Amino acid sequence: MSEGEGRRGRGRPRDERLDERILGATRELIDEVGYHQVTMEAIAARAQVGKASLYRRWPTKAAVITDAFATELVAPSAPDTGSVGEDALRFLRDLRQTLTLLGGPSVVAGAVAERGEAGQAELREILRSWSGPGAELLRRGIGRDELAASTPVDVVVDGWAGYLLYRVVFARVVPSDDELRALVSLLPTT
Amino acid sequence: MSEGEGRRGRGRPRDERLDERILGATRELIDEVGYHQVTMEAIAARAQVGKASLYRRWPTKAAVITDAFATELVAPSAPDTGSVGEDALRFLRDLRQTLTLLGGPSVVAGAVAERGEAGQAELREILRSWSGPGAELLRRGIGRDELAASTPVDVVVDGWAGYLLYRVVFARVVPSDDELRALVSLLPTT
Repeated sequence: MSEGEGRRGRGRPRDERLDERILGATRELIDEVGYHQVTMEAIAARAQVGKASLYRRWPTKAAVITDAFATELVAPSAPDTGSVGEDALRFLRDLRQTLTLLGGPSVVAGAVAERGEAGQAELREILRSWSGPGAELLRRGIGRDELAASTPVDVVVDGWAGYLLYRVVFARVVPSDDELRALVSLLPTT
Repeated sequence: MSEGEGRRGRGRPRDERLDERILGATRELIDEVGYHQVTMEAIAARAQVGKASLYRRWPTKAAVITDAFATELVAPSAPDTGSVGEDALRFLRDLRQTLTLLGGPSVVAGAVAERGEAGQAELREILRSWSGPGAELLRRGIGRDELAASTPVDVVVDGWAGYLLYRVVFARVVPSDDELRALVSLLPTT
């Protein structure tokens, strides 16, 4: 190995620059040829690192790609436009963007399937990170008397996550804005 | 091989009785020891069939278990109690039962993950088979003026499927009746 990686276990720190070089190469290749065409060989070559070294850090293509795009995920947020319907629509669009970041639905579905239970767990954690902001914007709507006080906040937010998950990963369709608006129309407005 | 299996490809039909013996043995073992403890070895032994013969029919444990329980899935239906809210609640309970048939959520999630894209496809087909009946009961509610004419029927049904999918397979929780009632409460009643 000549790429100067950190040798964990021999007292030297992991070389974060090397990690970043690999992740950057991965992003470049995804942009150039798409998820399905990217290979571990190509990533290693582009990053100028040995294949063994790449596999030691990330055991699968799905793993390195997931990490490569983790930093580009849209951060979960609770938009505050003054209208709960508009907030909800923006929230749903941002979540849709996160779920389709890597490419079309078949790419997301493929990556989740390829990684098995780890893929499920990653997707679950991504969706969970959105539940707080989603609940926040709904509670704001309740506070402004836009939504019924009895609105089942958690069920609504999990319903949004579930809807997008089902459409993108299982039905393999990117939900249209009309679909998102239909979801929003189900909010129990006062 | 002494178990008298049909030799497909040599002009003899697949022995359906042998298939059924294997599936029956699988169901017995699941009942006795649970999904995680069942092994292909145990299934072969219980069915008195060679392991090679079992693997030729079903390449993985998840595959044979999926087939073993396919006939026990609750058939999708559109209950007609005269109240769309009650119909919806019964529908959601039946769908919940189907998604948890094999055991707890971790079992369902494990089986889906183990089977990768094939597992996703199976679950998608199961959920899709429920969308017609779900839409039917909602349209009946619209016809009786219980629901707003503008109810986005397909989005509601996909939302139900997505909610249960997310909760069972990803969050690994069996949705309570309270959760299902909260989902029903979001229907745009007139």
